[in-house]
Amino acid sequence: MSRLQKQIDFCQEIDQEKGIERKTLTLKGERFENDAEHAWHAALMAILLQEHANEEIDLLKTVTMLLIHDLVEIDAGDTYAYDEKGQENHYEKEYKAAKRIYGLLPEDQRKYLMGLWEEFEAQKTPEARFARTIDNFQPTMLNHASKGEMWKRNQIKLSQVLKRNEPSKRGSQVLWDYSYQNFIEPHLNQELEDDTKKSD
Amino acid sequence: MSRLQKQIDFCQEIDQEKGIERKTLTLKGERFENDAEHAWHAALMAILLQEHANEEIDLLKTVTMLLIHDLVEIDAGDTYAYDEKGQENHYEKEYKAAKRIYGLLPEDQRKYLMGLWEEFEAQKTPEARFARTIDNFQPTMLNHASKGEMWKRNQIKLSQVLKRNEPSKRGSQVLWDYSYQNFIEPHLNQELEDDTKKSD
Repeated sequence: MSRLQKQIDFCQEIDQEKGIERKTLTLKGERFENDAEHAWHAALMAILLQEHANEEIDLLKTVTMLLIHDLVEIDAGDTYAYDEKGQENHYEKEYKAAKRIYGLLPEDQRKYLMGLWEEFEAQKTPEARFARTIDNFQPTMLNHASKGEMWKRNQIKLSQVLKRNEPSKRGSQVLWDYSYQNFIEPHLNQELEDDTKKSD
Repeated sequence: MSRLQKQIDFCQEIDQEKGIERKTLTLKGERFENDAEHAWHAALMAILLQEHANEEIDLLKTVTMLLIHDLVEIDAGDTYAYDEKGQENHYEKEYKAAKRIYGLLPEDQRKYLMGLWEEFEAQKTPEARFARTIDNFQPTMLNHASKGEMWKRNQIKLSQVLKRNEPSKRGSQVLWDYSYQNFIEPHLNQELEDDTKKSD
């Protein structure tokens, strides 16, 4: 099979990302967004918010990482950030998916995208850290805009949000501070139970 | 208003792009795709297919152009590529939209994105030409995959497809040739009327 044909096969395969529903409502709360929409939003936000990264980043690498970071969900499905049971064997399922999906590409491109995905998962480079910050910031922004509905519906507690967002400050202290003050704090004890305070 | 607040306001505003339906069916023909999904797909395809551009391109610039190229449709709406009436006053409507939407950003970012959008429209740089090629290639690929349904439904003729795709070869001869042979030719005289041959 020609190099171009392998590339086109991959471009067709990834169309399925548009059918993978996330547990985040769109800004106006009308419906769940899907992985393709999330990846578009996150990639563009990384471009616009790059100046707030803690470290210098290679922007093209960060954007590419965000555009591809959820492709594994074509096979492995979306797991809600607060679904602890769903996290079991999560990496194994996603790794198998990455091997199959990126394996459709010519070898050099397979290696490049597989490497980028592993880099994102490992969180050891400035690009991976900032991509993670944006990957968390975007749904938190939407969740706030749709009045904390998904936290309420899933009875999410502050301790869970803090645990989930723990890596956020490593990519951008500025965005984490903004996110906490503007997207999380207004929902405390209404849509989001503050279970972090010790009782007297 | 702080610089960061302006950026966040813009990031929230653009969420509406997920609600703008295009006249292209998803690969399996289940539903229409929207502008956000299209922009994601096109941006990733530009990364994977960059080697087929006729000229050397700045990839980050091309990807950014594709991520933002349809934001004006938040105000101006999507106009079907083959809707000649809809093309009237098209640029004026989109220009007004661009001014409002990009105007939400801090001045330097407003200028940068507005400039990128105008560059895409003007088609005078290698990046704009390759972005246009991808912007045409992606829906043609989907239209072929969904068995030429949209050409059939809208009684599109080959001459219209050729006119629409005329800029494609300026960005990438390789992708245009592939597109013609694999996505268009198989549909001639079935879903797509070949009105280009003179009768004897």
